[in-house]
Amino acid sequence: MKLKVKILKFLTGRPVCMIHKKTAREMSLHIDNRVYVKKANKRIISIVNTIEGIISPKEIAVSNAVIKHLKLKKGDMVEVEITESPKSINLIKKKLKGEELEKQEIEEIIRDISHNALKEAEIAFFISALNSQGMSLNETKNLVTAMVKTGKKLKLKGKVADKHCIGGIAGNRTTPLVVSICASAGLIMPKTSSRAITSAAGTADVIETIAKVDFSVKQIKKIIQKTNACLVWGGALGLAPADDKIIKIERIVKVDSTAQLIASILSKKISVDSDYILIDIPYGKSAKVNKRQAKKLEIRFKKLGKKFGLKIEVILTDGREPIGNAIGPVLEINDIIKILKRESNAPKDLEEKSILLSGKLLEMTGKAKKGKGIKLATEILNSGKAFKKFEQIIKIQKGKVRKINPGKYIYNVYAKNNKKIKSYDNKLINGLARFAGCPQNKAAGIYLHKKAKQKIQKGDKILTIYATSKEKLKHAIKFYNKNKKLMIEF
Amino acid sequence: MKLKVKILKFLTGRPVCMIHKKTAREMSLHIDNRVYVKKANKRIISIVNTIEGIISPKEIAVSNAVIKHLKLKKGDMVEVEITESPKSINLIKKKLKGEELEKQEIEEIIRDISHNALKEAEIAFFISALNSQGMSLNETKNLVTAMVKTGKKLKLKGKVADKHCIGGIAGNRTTPLVVSICASAGLIMPKTSSRAITSAAGTADVIETIAKVDFSVKQIKKIIQKTNACLVWGGALGLAPADDKIIKIERIVKVDSTAQLIASILSKKISVDSDYILIDIPYGKSAKVNKRQAKKLEIRFKKLGKKFGLKIEVILTDGREPIGNAIGPVLEINDIIKILKRESNAPKDLEEKSILLSGKLLEMTGKAKKGKGIKLATEILNSGKAFKKFEQIIKIQKGKVRKINPGKYIYNVYAKNNKKIKSYDNKLINGLARFAGCPQNKAAGIYLHKKAKQKIQKGDKILTIYATSKEKLKHAIKFYNKNKKLMIEF
Repeated sequence: MKLKVKILKFLTGRPVCMIHKKTAREMSLHIDNRVYVKKANKRIISIVNTIEGIISPKEIAVSNAVIKHLKLKKGDMVEVEITESPKSINLIKKKLKGEELEKQEIEEIIRDISHNALKEAEIAFFISALNSQGMSLNETKNLVTAMVKTGKKLKLKGKVADKHCIGGIAGNRTTPLVVSICASAGLIMPKTSSRAITSAAGTADVIETIAKVDFSVKQIKKIIQKTNACLVWGGALGLAPADDKIIKIERIVKVDSTAQLIASILSKKISVDSDYILIDIPYGKSAKVNKRQAKKLEIRFKKLGKKFGLKIEVILTDGREPIGNAIGPVLEINDIIKILKRESNAPKDLEEKSILLSGKLLEMTGKAKKGKGIKLATEILNSGKAFKKFEQIIKIQKGKVRKINPGKYIYNVYAKNNKKIKSYDNKLINGLARFAGCPQNKAAGIYLHKKAKQKIQKGDKILTIYATSKEKLKHAIKFYNKNKKLMIEF
Repeated sequence: MKLKVKILKFLTGRPVCMIHKKTAREMSLHIDNRVYVKKANKRIISIVNTIEGIISPKEIAVSNAVIKHLKLKKGDMVEVEITESPKSINLIKKKLKGEELEKQEIEEIIRDISHNALKEAEIAFFISALNSQGMSLNETKNLVTAMVKTGKKLKLKGKVADKHCIGGIAGNRTTPLVVSICASAGLIMPKTSSRAITSAAGTADVIETIAKVDFSVKQIKKIIQKTNACLVWGGALGLAPADDKIIKIERIVKVDSTAQLIASILSKKISVDSDYILIDIPYGKSAKVNKRQAKKLEIRFKKLGKKFGLKIEVILTDGREPIGNAIGPVLEINDIIKILKRESNAPKDLEEKSILLSGKLLEMTGKAKKGKGIKLATEILNSGKAFKKFEQIIKIQKGKVRKINPGKYIYNVYAKNNKKIKSYDNKLINGLARFAGCPQNKAAGIYLHKKAKQKIQKGDKILTIYATSKEKLKHAIKFYNKNKKLMIEF
């Protein structure tokens, strides 16, 4: 049926159209049904709501996502058409029963997810199926392929390399350092990062304290052409968009099926044209995975690398406690600048880990000989070249390298005796930073003055909580006092 | 924040409120967040959409569900308040990990579901958790208790009895017969039934061909006071409403976890105050369960009956093929009337099964002595008392007992040789009836002239497809020809 667009300017969690009750009845449409809204050769699936009064039976009002996709203006005519229930629902059922999915079946599900043809509950069942039934190597490969196929791609020349950490460790901001070092050595590093979801800060949040991170694929290409690298937010680029939609639902219950974790990482890397990929898997008590799971993941990543003809290396790292001293966007960027400027009070563990990862990448790509990567990475860092590269990237991303003051509401924790710290719990440290205001308040966070195995004397400052309001600081102190015994193991 | 209600008369799949973009920003609200909308001492959780233009920053527009719940009028002031993310999401996570849930934890989840505090995807994860992890006997008991507690209840005097079939068998319309026979014998039968979801007809669809089925709890109480029984639709009564919401999501992938199947049935029965419950579990190749699963279910039902102090009996029945000859609302009501009127061409198997179930219930409740239930049920049926009772119920439900013409577009299938039929596939027969137009077109359906083991001669009429339009008949014939080999096993 042809209907006339009325612009109501409303935003919803999924594409929605409002159709007059009479028209819905005439078309045998019910609330929550899916329809195609079409204009010219474009179409989008949206969910039916009904309305009376504001629009006439010959009109339709659509949410902003639909307006944007179809480039609609007031008075435009659109065709509204009933869609059949997507076949991919049956395929999800098949997977829930434990059956293996064929290549084209996985593609059908992923295409439907990327086109909004599946509702949230349907995606949740897909995630549950992957979680309870797992996926074979072949299925995972097909999942990656389907995710890449349904999204935008970046085409790049040169030796394109990337690093990725599976996450879960507080601090651990190696990315800006690795990117600066490796890009100085001539590698192409199209680094897209996420914002914090459950942690205190994502790399995108950290870079955003001093530069813009929100660019289009076209703009990113230009940035990379000029600097060999970028440090941008990957969330709205449309690279493997089905992945973004799956993650949004997955986040609800924080289930991370192996297949989905791997597919999420590889699909993004393949979409930005990476040939050399280094995966950092921190393991430990409060990390995302334990050693056994880490090894299993390593094997999976390597096997898939072969299937895609990619050079993938995996490094298992110590994830027993946070890496670096700073947790929170502003505190972290300050420490990164300290390392790049070779200041003496920079966090050693973060520097060492970044050099280790950079060295690996330089060896993988042939920029350094086997066993000489760490040496080359250290030279680049010491020479100031990495710092220059970082400045160049930040500048082209409309920023300026500078240290920033953290929140002015402060609470210090002091040592009650001379006992050394065994470890900090990553989840609780992240939690503490979030109570202090992270990631929304970029100047909030935690600074760890003492870390595992360092000498401590009674009265030493152990950690500082920074907040941007009295109230947030109070919340954080309360959380600290409630959880301190589990948060810091002596 | 206090906002003024603007009535836009819109209907959505879940309670939604439209807030001006500016107001949302001011309140730090994002699309898809949950808020409380409050008026006087009532409140409802709804999902945030934003809008510009149609409403002012001081106004709010809410979907009809919110208007109804809070009894809102144009210009009313409501309080809008951010809700925290429901704790029950963490409990769902706990169950997904395989941990057992405590009584109050299950109650929290069920309360949140019944109050719309959980979104569809969250409910899907809960269903997946039950499906992949199962529930202990205690958990299932607590699930039932929570479902009953969060809904309306019917309080009845006398010996309150009910029968329930787990479904999956085409035809099999024993309910109107069992209710009429048992209510004649003095049992109180508050029968609430569903409409067809994936089958050709639910009992509510069948009764609706000749009477109203949509009543309030209060009205149902009156109907039962006058006739001992009712034959109504249970879907909108608010009995165990969490169950209705779970089923709506479950339906997407048709997973039926044992715990949820049992809780769904028992919560409805307890809500209508039943003390004696007979559960019919048909098993067989094309039934919902096989014999092993049926026995497992039987044990579960009996154990739970003891826990609730209910008299539950379970009967395992032959579910290899449809029961009765008619599939589809009109065809089925006609056959029920034939049985009640003792006409000679009435379907024998449906009659026998209904007498068997009635006999069981009469014995369970002490209306008949052990071993004499079938005799009493047969007498009541033969005496015409059951027919009178049925007429009485239909009349008070604003109907009239009468046969109705089935669809006039007809296709007959004839025997090609003398081979007997081994069985009909329930799912495919249901599918065929749905292609013919069931359950929307009440006069559509299938009539099985020959059933398993009956003598067949070449040229005999085996089955007839009825439809109300040429097009539907064409669809059904196409489906028949595609599936006939699996549909009818010779």
